[in-house]
Amino acid sequence: MAMKLYGVPMSTCTTRVMACLHEKGADFELVPVNLGTGEHKQPPFLSKNPFGQIPVLEDGDLTLFESRAITAYVAEKCKETGTDLMRHKNPKEAVMVKVWMEVESQTFNPAISPVVMEYVIGPSMGKKTEQAVVDACMGKLGKVLDVYESRLSMCKYLAGDFYSMADLHHLPFMHYFMTTPCASMVKDRPHVMAWWQDISSRPAFKKMVGAMTFG
Amino acid sequence: MAMKLYGVPMSTCTTRVMACLHEKGADFELVPVNLGTGEHKQPPFLSKNPFGQIPVLEDGDLTLFESRAITAYVAEKCKETGTDLMRHKNPKEAVMVKVWMEVESQTFNPAISPVVMEYVIGPSMGKKTEQAVVDACMGKLGKVLDVYESRLSMCKYLAGDFYSMADLHHLPFMHYFMTTPCASMVKDRPHVMAWWQDISSRPAFKKMVGAMTFG
Ligand SMILES: N[C@@H](CCC(=O)N[C@@H](CS)C(=O)NCC(=O)O)C(=O)O
Ligand SMILES: N[C@@H](CCC(=O)N[C@@H](CS)C(=O)NCC(=O)O)C(=O)O
Repeated sequence: MAMKLYGVPMSTCTTRVMACLHEKGADFELVPVNLGTGEHKQPPFLSKNPFGQIPVLEDGDLTLFESRAITAYVAEKCKETGTDLMRHKNPKEAVMVKVWMEVESQTFNPAISPVVMEYVIGPSMGKKTEQAVVDACMGKLGKVLDVYESRLSMCKYLAGDFYSMADLHHLPFMHYFMTTPCASMVKDRPHVMAWWQDISSRPAFKKMVGAMTFG
Repeated sequence: MAMKLYGVPMSTCTTRVMACLHEKGADFELVPVNLGTGEHKQPPFLSKNPFGQIPVLEDGDLTLFESRAITAYVAEKCKETGTDLMRHKNPKEAVMVKVWMEVESQTFNPAISPVVMEYVIGPSMGKKTEQAVVDACMGKLGKVLDVYESRLSMCKYLAGDFYSMADLHHLPFMHYFMTTPCASMVKDRPHVMAWWQDISSRPAFKKMVGAMTFG
């Protein structure tokens, strides 16, 4: 039986998982969740994820939430097929993948997500962009991207000279960020820009990017 | 050669790693970093972690940063000794450990860390507690702890009926949080409180908790 992914293709956390499933060539069914009616805050969905958020993955009797835990599960389940996103055959590469996955989760994501919220997600729900929130994040994000620029001048991808889960986890927020007036922060850093052009042109990402749009 | 952990015992991210090393009975040397003089923002340290933060782990020719990537490395390296924090012999348990590790990282940590910053870390550096920051976090944290209360009424620890890395990662912030006026949020939830008393009384944590103090 195919895995079931509960989510919607405009959601960054859902597409993080979808990009991974596509890289692995895994068979799955996308089950839409109606965020508009609050389906994710009602009991049937809450029994899948008590935090009331998408995505959720069901595989047989397993029910998982948290996008980055789901991608780890998919990578382990489909170890031998598709792209080796975790470098499981090389322990030294594997640990660098984990380091840069943590950088995405702890440092990159908190700096970029409020910018995407203010410019893309908020306005799609009729909210005005709060410039103060954007400004507070730009400094943090600039420092993160400076480290990325230096790192990506030494190796082609974040964890080394191979595409990995660490790069993949950046895709959804980077995609929306590049549609904002702040995109120049990436365009002005040549190695970050080359990396973005590379990772965003992978077939597994192009397969779904058309559906990643708000409003 | 023993592993070298660069950090200080009052730092939450350093003690997250130390708790793991102790659970594993791993041999390591704690190398103090002088945050007061900004040693972590100078070139020798920046070559270990370009983000200029503690902790950093050195093991032979490997240099790692990000506390949660380091604990994953230690758990893998010391797979066969000490507590099996990742449940690597049972894939279904292992995936639940990863789910609840992500909950800590994505949901618990962002809600609790500003409270600890305002009540404990800030005041140790002469800053006044900003009540508005605390208030904004209390609502979020209360919702997280409600989910924990319900989860911990079904199983003894977050990922199941076994102590795991998911529980361990909570130790440092919980420890400081319990010294703040907000500690009643934990004390008023009997299953969360019983869990806290259990995980904080483990020998691996007690070994270092005496040194976890600010100012
Ligand atoms: N840390 C979670 C975050 C999940 C999350 O924020 N999901 C969003 C969509 S991208 C959602 O469900 N939003 C609706 C809500 O929170 O009410 C993950 O990575 O899966
Ligand atoms: N996500 C990192 C965070 C590291 C971190 O915030 N370290 C703090 C001490 S707990 C630090 O180095 N603070 C000094 C600074 O950022 O300048 C981790 O988990 O290791």
